[in-house]
Amino acid sequence: MGILFSMPGNERLAAELGRIGPWAAGALEIRRFPDGESYVRILPDVAGHRAAILCTLARPDSRFLRLVFTARTLKELGASSVTLIAPYLSYMRQDIRFEPGEALTSRHFADLLSQAFDRLITVDPHLHRYGNLREIYSIPATALSSAPLLARWVQDNIDRPVIIGPDSESEQWVSSIAGMANAPYLVLEKKRLGDRVVEIKAPDLARWKQCRPVIVDDIVSSGATLVETAKCLQDQGLPAPACLIVHALLGERAQRSLAAVAFPLISTNTVPHATNGISIAAAIAGTLDPEAR
Amino acid sequence: MGILFSMPGNERLAAELGRIGPWAAGALEIRRFPDGESYVRILPDVAGHRAAILCTLARPDSRFLRLVFTARTLKELGASSVTLIAPYLSYMRQDIRFEPGEALTSRHFADLLSQAFDRLITVDPHLHRYGNLREIYSIPATALSSAPLLARWVQDNIDRPVIIGPDSESEQWVSSIAGMANAPYLVLEKKRLGDRVVEIKAPDLARWKQCRPVIVDDIVSSGATLVETAKCLQDQGLPAPACLIVHALLGERAQRSLAAVAFPLISTNTVPHATNGISIAAAIAGTLDPEAR
Repeated sequence: MGILFSMPGNERLAAELGRIGPWAAGALEIRRFPDGESYVRILPDVAGHRAAILCTLARPDSRFLRLVFTARTLKELGASSVTLIAPYLSYMRQDIRFEPGEALTSRHFADLLSQAFDRLITVDPHLHRYGNLREIYSIPATALSSAPLLARWVQDNIDRPVIIGPDSESEQWVSSIAGMANAPYLVLEKKRLGDRVVEIKAPDLARWKQCRPVIVDDIVSSGATLVETAKCLQDQGLPAPACLIVHALLGERAQRSLAAVAFPLISTNTVPHATNGISIAAAIAGTLDPEAR
Repeated sequence: MGILFSMPGNERLAAELGRIGPWAAGALEIRRFPDGESYVRILPDVAGHRAAILCTLARPDSRFLRLVFTARTLKELGASSVTLIAPYLSYMRQDIRFEPGEALTSRHFADLLSQAFDRLITVDPHLHRYGNLREIYSIPATALSSAPLLARWVQDNIDRPVIIGPDSESEQWVSSIAGMANAPYLVLEKKRLGDRVVEIKAPDLARWKQCRPVIVDDIVSSGATLVETAKCLQDQGLPAPACLIVHALLGERAQRSLAAVAFPLISTNTVPHATNGISIAAAIAGTLDPEAR
């Protein structure tokens, strides 16, 4: 049987996975010394066992070293394989050099994780210019899709929905969710003017006035894109939209701005957040099962 | 000529090095996206040049990824070598497994840095059970000593000094500083009861009552060791001690506790801190010079 470890902050999803799957929960002692260094200790005997570490990679910089220390120590202690379950996979956005001299962080980060782990399981990685994770990850990588879960949510909760993608990058999620929910969809046009400033353009939306818009986006951090999208719909007289977020990286301020223009605001639990309402636990457990048996 | 880059927070020492050495200052653009990821851009043309990155490794977890991204990008852009100048080198303390299952973070961290850099320059690494940095670093590593600078400070500022080391780990610095300052020294006995709780024992100090104690320690974070050492001296009727710190990792609260029992409180600038009073810039420049010519 495999042993599932959970990095600090991932306890809720770990408990859910524990209830579903045949994995034993592995205890970790992780703390910070007064000097800011991480202390890591693995409590169970892992020799000869498959190990998996659950660690969302939202705000990755301060989580990275302790994650790698844990993975390397599991190997040293004889774990037969170490899988990373990162429901949210970070550093996927810098996939080209937009300006000369920029760090291609997506590749660097993928290299570092590929060195530390034997396998990667994630949910909806932000694949834009990369066709799939194999282009940058040298370990077997499984990308689960939250689209069926989001589509089911739309079917269960929204009458006459029209799915809205804020920009062309979102078309991949939006079209597949719309297909599964048997709903129409629209993709708007986004122009990014800065880290926190965007401009959204929509066509004439008169024919959608009887529909309930459901804005869908994969990663929401500043919230600027969704707020502008909601305003754009409102300007054209559509009902207040619902918002579905795959990876909720937004802080409290962004959440408040969004709550003022969209309701409900629902996210999957790839990143622990107050808006979590759709669980990806069963999908992850499904990927682990065959390995654990 | 080499190009010297400075990670955020190291600007003062970088400026000092710039004034002393023949290195060109390389501009970096580093910022944090709203989602917590790091953005790194190298502005000058580095192809064919030797590059060095100045980055103290105090509070290393949140600094690590951006440092490695910078090093890897310099290589990709054609830098002929990339040296890490880490005036304070972290993760040196966990050098054995005190309890089963503990991560040997000193080795893991050394491996990760050795993969990213061609050479390491540091000041007084905390070598306790390791004889030297070669035992864990696979790249050439230069360990500079601050002892001559601390000894000079003692000679210039303290009449009738007695150098005090709080524990046997400090004996290496204390004896060499005392030798250079031509002063006597004492090493006390420390028992660590927790991350922030220590007990210090001293022999009978009656014969030192006419001397001014100068407590010296290499790494100070919670400050508990120095506070207990100072109290122990006070209990035996010695004058209020001066404190010399190589790596000042202490926060404001620790600094206040220490300031109440010791004066002055002086540190080297391996870690930027309010107590910095002794500069290691010239020593570092001396190591860079031959390479730059």
